Amino acid sequence: MEDKEISQAVIGRLPRYFRYLGELKDAGIERISSQDLSELMKVTASQIRQDFNNFGGFGQQGYGYNVEYLYNEVGKILGLDQQHRFIIVGAGNLGRALGNYINFEKRGFIFCGIFDQNPDLFGKEIRGIKIRPMEEMEAFIRKNDVDIAVLTIPKSGAIAAAEKLVKNGIKAIWNFAHVDLNVPEGIQVENVHLSDSLMKLSYNISKARE
Amino acid sequence: MEDKEISQAVIGRLPRYFRYLGELKDAGIERISSQDLSELMKVTASQIRQDFNNFGGFGQQGYGYNVEYLYNEVGKILGLDQQHRFIIVGAGNLGRALGNYINFEKRGFIFCGIFDQNPDLFGKEIRGIKIRPMEEMEAFIRKNDVDIAVLTIPKSGAIAAAEKLVKNGIKAIWNFAHVDLNVPEGIQVENVHLSDSLMKLSYNISKARE
Repeated sequence: MEDKEISQAVIGRLPRYFRYLGELKDAGIERISSQDLSELMKVTASQIRQDFNNFGGFGQQGYGYNVEYLYNEVGKILGLDQQHRFIIVGAGNLGRALGNYINFEKRGFIFCGIFDQNPDLFGKEIRGIKIRPMEEMEAFIRKNDVDIAVLTIPKSGAIAAAEKLVKNGIKAIWNFAHVDLNVPEGIQVENVHLSDSLMKLSYNISKARE
Repeated sequence: MEDKEISQAVIGRLPRYFRYLGELKDAGIERISSQDLSELMKVTASQIRQDFNNFGGFGQQGYGYNVEYLYNEVGKILGLDQQHRFIIVGAGNLGRALGNYINFEKRGFIFCGIFDQNPDLFGKEIRGIKIRPMEEMEAFIRKNDVDIAVLTIPKSGAIAAAEKLVKNGIKAIWNFAHVDLNVPEGIQVENVHLSDSLMKLSYNISKARE
């Protein structure tokens, strides 16, 4: 399994499986057939079987999937059995919203620092974490074993910030800045371009009116 | 062109073209070849030509694309030449962050209302828009010609809220709640599942460590 290259399309679907399996588990459901899971999630049963086959199947023919086992296995594949320490770069509205989102903690994402260049914000706290000056970011990363940086600053400063993050050992950037980052091979970037998403909605509204 | 069904994959790439074209335009660049655009955006020139062919081409053989013309045309396709009025349902950190984001306004998305169930927030303002009680939402939508609802409430209330929105004439939902919405045919939904995006990043970090 480690040798097989899984497509990003399959990876992109795993969190949704994880979410549905978590809801089934919380509802006390122990087993589910690929057919029932298919109806619930509105994807074909064959798609589900194909996706899971990438990871060795999980299925027991005729018995369906064991919900809790599958939930845990998908979680492990997603790396959610490990802890990831993250900082937030930019303490504007979005940065503060993400810092306050406690559900990330439940998935093993530990909020450990937040930085901004606005002196009015220095020392204010988000869930017990003090907002620090941007100048302290690089030393902080080196000292605190940080895995992920969440980038929520305007695009004008984002590329320079990304370079500093990578230079100081950050392995992954969750990028909310409205710009594409150029990072070295081996650094993971996941973009959330909110305006792009809103424009796609706008297209579909216009299209539906025609 | 109106009769042709454009794939959501192509639509999903249009906002990125729009973003790059806007930057070129702002930098004073008047023409660009598909080859140069390809290098800048790190997609193949053939992909660019194929994407634009869905909308009649835009290109002038040998001269490259006229940047401003192309920017305007892509903007029109995305419906950005029209105004869309939106409300925000949920005035938590994320809802307030989105309400404060003035760039949406530049693209024709007009913030006109925000609702919450927390009485402590009633009457507080976000860019001059008062936070109102959730009970006033339905009447507000009917009176104010609202196109889009941004859903930023927890998933427990999201499905019921979506039903109310649709019943009162909302045409599109930008869904940040961590749940899949079941809406009637013709209602547009664009999901931003932030946790899903973070889990994808987590997978890629784990994978890179192997």
